[in-house]
Amino acid sequence: MIGYNIIGKKISALNDKTIQASNPKNQEQLEGEFHVATTEEADEAIQKAKAVAREYANLPSSKKALFLRTIADNIEKLSSKLIDRVVAESGLPEGRVTGERGRTCGQLRFFADKIEEGSWVNAIVDRGDVDIRQCLQPLGPVVVFTASNFPLAFSTAGGDTASALASGCPVIVKAHESHLGTNNLVAECIMAAAIECGLPDGVFSSLNGAGYELGSYLVKHPDVQAVAFTGSYGGGKALYDLAQSRPHPIPVFSEMGSVNPIFVLPQAMEKKTTSWAEAIASSVNLGAGQFCTNPGIIVVERNEFLTAFSDQLVDAFSRLQAATMLNKGIHANYNKAKYSKSQESGVKIKYIEIDDDKASLSAHPCLLEVSYADYSKNPKLSQEVFGPFTIMVVCENQSEMKEVASQMEGQLTASIIGEADEIIKANDLLEIAASKVGRIIINGMPTGVAVCEAMNHGGPFPATTDPRFTSVGGNAIYRFVRPVCYQGFPDELLPDALKEANPLGIRRLENGEYK
Amino acid sequence: MIGYNIIGKKISALNDKTIQASNPKNQEQLEGEFHVATTEEADEAIQKAKAVAREYANLPSSKKALFLRTIADNIEKLSSKLIDRVVAESGLPEGRVTGERGRTCGQLRFFADKIEEGSWVNAIVDRGDVDIRQCLQPLGPVVVFTASNFPLAFSTAGGDTASALASGCPVIVKAHESHLGTNNLVAECIMAAAIECGLPDGVFSSLNGAGYELGSYLVKHPDVQAVAFTGSYGGGKALYDLAQSRPHPIPVFSEMGSVNPIFVLPQAMEKKTTSWAEAIASSVNLGAGQFCTNPGIIVVERNEFLTAFSDQLVDAFSRLQAATMLNKGIHANYNKAKYSKSQESGVKIKYIEIDDDKASLSAHPCLLEVSYADYSKNPKLSQEVFGPFTIMVVCENQSEMKEVASQMEGQLTASIIGEADEIIKANDLLEIAASKVGRIIINGMPTGVAVCEAMNHGGPFPATTDPRFTSVGGNAIYRFVRPVCYQGFPDELLPDALKEANPLGIRRLENGEYK
Repeated sequence: MIGYNIIGKKISALNDKTIQASNPKNQEQLEGEFHVATTEEADEAIQKAKAVAREYANLPSSKKALFLRTIADNIEKLSSKLIDRVVAESGLPEGRVTGERGRTCGQLRFFADKIEEGSWVNAIVDRGDVDIRQCLQPLGPVVVFTASNFPLAFSTAGGDTASALASGCPVIVKAHESHLGTNNLVAECIMAAAIECGLPDGVFSSLNGAGYELGSYLVKHPDVQAVAFTGSYGGGKALYDLAQSRPHPIPVFSEMGSVNPIFVLPQAMEKKTTSWAEAIASSVNLGAGQFCTNPGIIVVERNEFLTAFSDQLVDAFSRLQAATMLNKGIHANYNKAKYSKSQESGVKIKYIEIDDDKASLSAHPCLLEVSYADYSKNPKLSQEVFGPFTIMVVCENQSEMKEVASQMEGQLTASIIGEADEIIKANDLLEIAASKVGRIIINGMPTGVAVCEAMNHGGPFPATTDPRFTSVGGNAIYRFVRPVCYQGFPDELLPDALKEANPLGIRRLENGEYK
Repeated sequence: MIGYNIIGKKISALNDKTIQASNPKNQEQLEGEFHVATTEEADEAIQKAKAVAREYANLPSSKKALFLRTIADNIEKLSSKLIDRVVAESGLPEGRVTGERGRTCGQLRFFADKIEEGSWVNAIVDRGDVDIRQCLQPLGPVVVFTASNFPLAFSTAGGDTASALASGCPVIVKAHESHLGTNNLVAECIMAAAIECGLPDGVFSSLNGAGYELGSYLVKHPDVQAVAFTGSYGGGKALYDLAQSRPHPIPVFSEMGSVNPIFVLPQAMEKKTTSWAEAIASSVNLGAGQFCTNPGIIVVERNEFLTAFSDQLVDAFSRLQAATMLNKGIHANYNKAKYSKSQESGVKIKYIEIDDDKASLSAHPCLLEVSYADYSKNPKLSQEVFGPFTIMVVCENQSEMKEVASQMEGQLTASIIGEADEIIKANDLLEIAASKVGRIIINGMPTGVAVCEAMNHGGPFPATTDPRFTSVGGNAIYRFVRPVCYQGFPDELLPDALKEANPLGIRRLENGEYK
């Protein structure tokens, strides 16, 4: 495997500097020397994207849909070659990786269907003394930063790329250092699809980079129009600040950290002790806890069922398997953070293992406990630990549970677990929690983000930098467009979405009525 | 008139410091001592807004709609008392002010109708193994900065306030120093309407302030969730930067400067010389040129019709009447800027008058001319002059006209004037221009922004700080909301918009189909 950069329809390796990927399970170097993109290569990728932006935007949706489906087909054709590389680079189990490939290809086809149907452009027609029409148009070149924890579904051909390409924007991907080979394989699938579909040269590029240099160059480039990022708060906020300090600020959609609290009400603790304890423990340990929606805080009320519930949780945690984490940095940070939290004032260790095996990057789940009194005094305890970690906050009453919700920062999700009656009575808690999150869940775990029209994978800052948009689900496409209004246009010059005869057959708002 | 601040349902004047408004036509002080809001008063307004945000959001739409309609009724009841004060404070003619009042009340009723119909919340229902639903929810307290040039329609009860209140957000208005009395009268109408409709105490407040102190306090306040502003680039960008540097950044919708180029194609110049020259001159001088959509650049091709067209323009400009500008600062800046531009290299004066009457703030329109060669070398010439000013850029060919479009910064609008055939052939110019603007107009003037669903009054930076949203038209409401996803909810706890039986009878996307 030669790790070229991909710039439109060509491969490029101007830089002698190369980087490698390693297997987190044994720290062995994996095949492939990946050439770090030079500034010239990055600029060329953006210039090509800019040059073809209008042509790509104007292509019929059927052609863009074919492109997305061809990418999915090409990814599937790689078969075990891709799966093996992802497993080797991520340490994730094969079953999970196969599932993630399905999700990735499913997303590509989901957006293909969506743009082929076409109504997403929000066409509005007002026929009056003056004829005024409006629809959405793509912003232009989008930079996508790939995520460490989803080498396929939130990476090279993941949801950001799929929705940006679907919206009509060219995409420049910055590969993640942890899965350079995966990126290379998938980027080749996209390049091949662009060639097979006869697309203009520059709708997609993929660049290898180490550290912040390439990323900040891309975000500051005047011809980049939007940025999508999934990762840590530090990384996402730094890119956001960089973009806002440009002479011409651009939108940055950073999906960052979240502790996704689960509030467990008393009757649920009493009546379904074991099943909820098992569900929570499994959710905490899923994918070695390396999910944006990992539940990092469990909020309970001190009552006669607490001991049994707590014991069941500990039992469930002790039966969970250790798993390999994504890379050395994540593994080291997880162990440091869980140990450090366990030493905070008032914190009790319920289940912990020292995971000092730096060869295998293996990590066990961790369960801590703290009273609301101690929790509320210590802001550190509400901060995310990336990994299979959770802390149980024990409140003296429901009013303290509501305080946890009131005091929490913006989150991707919050969950309420309860029996039917008590859920109804907890409406106030539900409303407070809903005001802080992008998705509120009753009697379910936050992990597992369905790709559907109603999904919102986003939330108030600091969960994301823009709570008005989602990075998963149909509405993810709206991150990369803006409305353009056409006044007094002759029919033949209007975009097809707005032509009088509605040749696309899409749903439109015409003189105030949906047609 | 005693110029109190209005904080929810009470009036407040803690500060001894007062400011006054003056009549731009004669510089006389107008009745009224307006108490500048203290930090305590500003904080109280925000705390009240925060305290009632959830209660107001949860009110049925019919109640919010009644509130908006009652505001409109109360404004109309003020009758000549309001009109006289606006005329006295703004120097605008009575006819224009009466029209603007109609627009203001029309907007309030437009949003009342929109929320009563209810489909705007974009309800999505996905029934599957897991039940996932989504709709839009209000962000919380919104700060509205009122505009100098529209004392009613973009001010206290203008489009920003109307759309924010319609979305379910409480509003805190910062009054404009030029029309403190107008603000006071209208704010009283809103306070009275809130009391008449039995709304919670804090859905609306109005604060008087001088300079930047109050404004920056409001934008930095941690409980403010969004900001709307209409005004200069300097003011709008400063508020944007302030909001982005908060620990918790918030959206700022600044609608700022724009030069709104008009491209005139050759056949139109030949065949409709007089009518287009008259239309352009009138548009430039409308409201003393104090419109965001004022056409500040006219782009033409040098040809045999140019002299006749130019002569007609000069003739039309010479017949236009001078008008009073909004305040001393605007009048002084206009005269300084038009003189300064007239002295730039290669610029020819076609029509200019020295407007040095500082007593009446009277200003004549100004027409300059420059070749594309000189224009393209001098970035100053593409900058906005706020007032009845335009500069004609003479290109040697259509390719230079396209260059003007390619090089221009983001604009609210661009217009193309042409006969049917040449418009079709100018598709490339149209597309370039469309990529830079929020609204593209064929054979019409940019001034006159219709309040309708298809309107987009926005555009790429620096025309606004967020090109994805409009400040006029139905979609203005989307600035103040974010999606919230409800997973696994029992029907009775869902918002009405998402309940299984669709009790609001709104249009929803259900399992991928619009119902």
